[in-house]
Amino acid sequence: MSWKKELDRMLGNARAASFCAAQCSPALKKKILLDVAARMKKKTARLVSENKKDLAAAKTTGLSAAMIDRLTLTPERVKKMAEGVRAVAGLQDPIGSVQSQWKRPNGLKIQKVTVPLGVILMIYESRPNVTVECAALCLKSSNVAILRGGREAMASNRALVAIFKESLKYHKLPSCFVNLVTTTDYKAVDFLLSQEGRIDLVIPRGGEKLIRRVVAKSRIPVVKHYQGICHVYVDRKADIRKAVPIVLNAKLQRPGVCNAMETLLVHREIAGAFLPLAGVLLKKGGCEIRGDALTRRYIPWAKRAKADDYGCEFLEKILAVKVVKDLDEAIEHIETYGSRHTDAIVTEDPQAASAFKAKVDSSSVMINASTRFSDGFEYGFGAEIGISTDKIHARGPMGLEGLTSYKYIVEGNGHIRT
Amino acid sequence: MSWKKELDRMLGNARAASFCAAQCSPALKKKILLDVAARMKKKTARLVSENKKDLAAAKTTGLSAAMIDRLTLTPERVKKMAEGVRAVAGLQDPIGSVQSQWKRPNGLKIQKVTVPLGVILMIYESRPNVTVECAALCLKSSNVAILRGGREAMASNRALVAIFKESLKYHKLPSCFVNLVTTTDYKAVDFLLSQEGRIDLVIPRGGEKLIRRVVAKSRIPVVKHYQGICHVYVDRKADIRKAVPIVLNAKLQRPGVCNAMETLLVHREIAGAFLPLAGVLLKKGGCEIRGDALTRRYIPWAKRAKADDYGCEFLEKILAVKVVKDLDEAIEHIETYGSRHTDAIVTEDPQAASAFKAKVDSSSVMINASTRFSDGFEYGFGAEIGISTDKIHARGPMGLEGLTSYKYIVEGNGHIRT
Repeated sequence: MSWKKELDRMLGNARAASFCAAQCSPALKKKILLDVAARMKKKTARLVSENKKDLAAAKTTGLSAAMIDRLTLTPERVKKMAEGVRAVAGLQDPIGSVQSQWKRPNGLKIQKVTVPLGVILMIYESRPNVTVECAALCLKSSNVAILRGGREAMASNRALVAIFKESLKYHKLPSCFVNLVTTTDYKAVDFLLSQEGRIDLVIPRGGEKLIRRVVAKSRIPVVKHYQGICHVYVDRKADIRKAVPIVLNAKLQRPGVCNAMETLLVHREIAGAFLPLAGVLLKKGGCEIRGDALTRRYIPWAKRAKADDYGCEFLEKILAVKVVKDLDEAIEHIETYGSRHTDAIVTEDPQAASAFKAKVDSSSVMINASTRFSDGFEYGFGAEIGISTDKIHARGPMGLEGLTSYKYIVEGNGHIRT
Repeated sequence: MSWKKELDRMLGNARAASFCAAQCSPALKKKILLDVAARMKKKTARLVSENKKDLAAAKTTGLSAAMIDRLTLTPERVKKMAEGVRAVAGLQDPIGSVQSQWKRPNGLKIQKVTVPLGVILMIYESRPNVTVECAALCLKSSNVAILRGGREAMASNRALVAIFKESLKYHKLPSCFVNLVTTTDYKAVDFLLSQEGRIDLVIPRGGEKLIRRVVAKSRIPVVKHYQGICHVYVDRKADIRKAVPIVLNAKLQRPGVCNAMETLLVHREIAGAFLPLAGVLLKKGGCEIRGDALTRRYIPWAKRAKADDYGCEFLEKILAVKVVKDLDEAIEHIETYGSRHTDAIVTEDPQAASAFKAKVDSSSVMINASTRFSDGFEYGFGAEIGISTDKIHARGPMGLEGLTSYKYIVEGNGHIRT
């Protein structure tokens, strides 16, 4: 199989390049990224015309209008991508910092130093901007990127990766710091996922089906994101003037994303004051409500919630609502139905807030704030490679730090162990 | 299958207990561990008599003398295990500390707080002391332990786990914080490795075959240790009075462990002064040498190294030796043949040391110190759950910190996203 040979060569070069990448100075990496951004802007016309090839093919294969929209590059979108690369260029370099250091009683000096992971495989779907984001973040963190984007964006991705390669060559670095997998054979993905020892980390981005497939096949560690089944719990001591905007924001500001609220839990003592008002405003926002019996007492037009509405990731303007008898029932509900992504409490009671943040085992726990803040940019990371629902390696919003590892440097003076 | 039902129940209880474990106070955990140590000492006779059952069975199944020795519990060894538990009790509690905190321009307060991983599956071989170590470290880090030890130690492991369970019950905690898998059906292991979502991390400890099998089957993240192919490079500017003891120590102090040196690299300019002396002393220590042509010029009795002697994990008194023309060749050799575990340079030249520590991509890089220091206790962690050859989650010697994750706690005042 010719793709196998090609991938073998790519991985060999990638491993060799990773040693070199780890040595790149922060200044050089920054320079290259700024240069990439400038080249992207200069080549806008070419990028748009290559993208037209993908769009033409997409129309014949019957891609949905939404998918075609996500695939489309306009001069405006190219400009935005280039600005994204400039932003990454300006971030603090994550490599080479001393995380901690100490001296042992025998005189050994130990340093824990941040290093790149090595070779990172990204598997994702159609949007060409993901190609640019991933390549830029890997470069900034001195990792070699193996990019396996969707076949429907192949011409666009080729043109985008070519820009990175040009800039690397211009700066006398191996162009194989950034690699695009150009075969569309799915067996090639399985092959890549078996290359433990040549690839250090796999990050899949896309629908749950794609991610489950990657996890099932991979012998390489995977950092992943399954579902965001986020809850907002309105406590009996909630300030309704905060609770209402938070609930509306968490559900309606962008219902299709993982940090949007899917289930609302309301303490029974505040349900009468809160639910009728929240219900009216949610309805006004176009939101369907599926509630239990008590909810429907306060929001008569709500549908009856079925058992599987709780724990469902609707990703649209549908909200499951439940009235609970106390904080413990809310926490238990989140334990049972949540996905440990992001869950919020609205309360003015410090004890309730304290119990909630201690007991809720989610990557982000919000106190009097919308679940929508669970995001690398909102946390100030300056970038986001994804949100991890794992507890291993990286948890929650994952910026450049998630693309690093560390090594121990131990300095002695002829020390031997006795 | 009855084991499946039993494991299903065990995992259900474990998940429930993990929420409770996360809430345990440091004082209570310490108290329980001290109590476990006291109970172990008190029950020495019972532990030894249960262990005799395993030993009797082992003799009929023809276990090797070395394996039987590792399996054997004596009153002295029980005392040592109990002391180990006391030592873990005395370590700093790893849970609940604020790793970092910051405030966003919009007023949101963000804290990154250490939390337990949840449920940890340990898969290991015969030694009963691993049962005690793992149970103690999981308890200290508020994780629920699922222990799958070797079938040949079953009676011993049952008796040891019973002590943990008694102490947990006595302190009014769920005894299912510590669980022993009592079925010896290997399908049960495969079943456990498929339980993504109920188990957070798998740590296999044992031979490479066991570990490869676990990695191939697991859908749960695995932190693992493959091989320790450790190098010592004696630079042209090495102080021979340091180089000789370091080389002897790295090879001979305990040849069967992962941080022992397997290959010695010597700069050609120092080979004539260093190798004859080192050769005599290695020979005196009972070490076989397999060298290239230049090595054999200085150590005439050395065997001719075959290609696969480089990169071989001998784990015995055999050493591969190569004379290299410069530092770059040494680094390249380590890149090609090493396992990224631990590699050392002996040099008085700060530039050589600096290049070596920057370029060698190993979890521990030693300067003028023996590779044998690559160890959780030697690094001052107070405990070691293993040494990771991964770059993900935990790298190198892994103490209690490797058994933790974190969560973000975000505190607002009615913040919504715009």
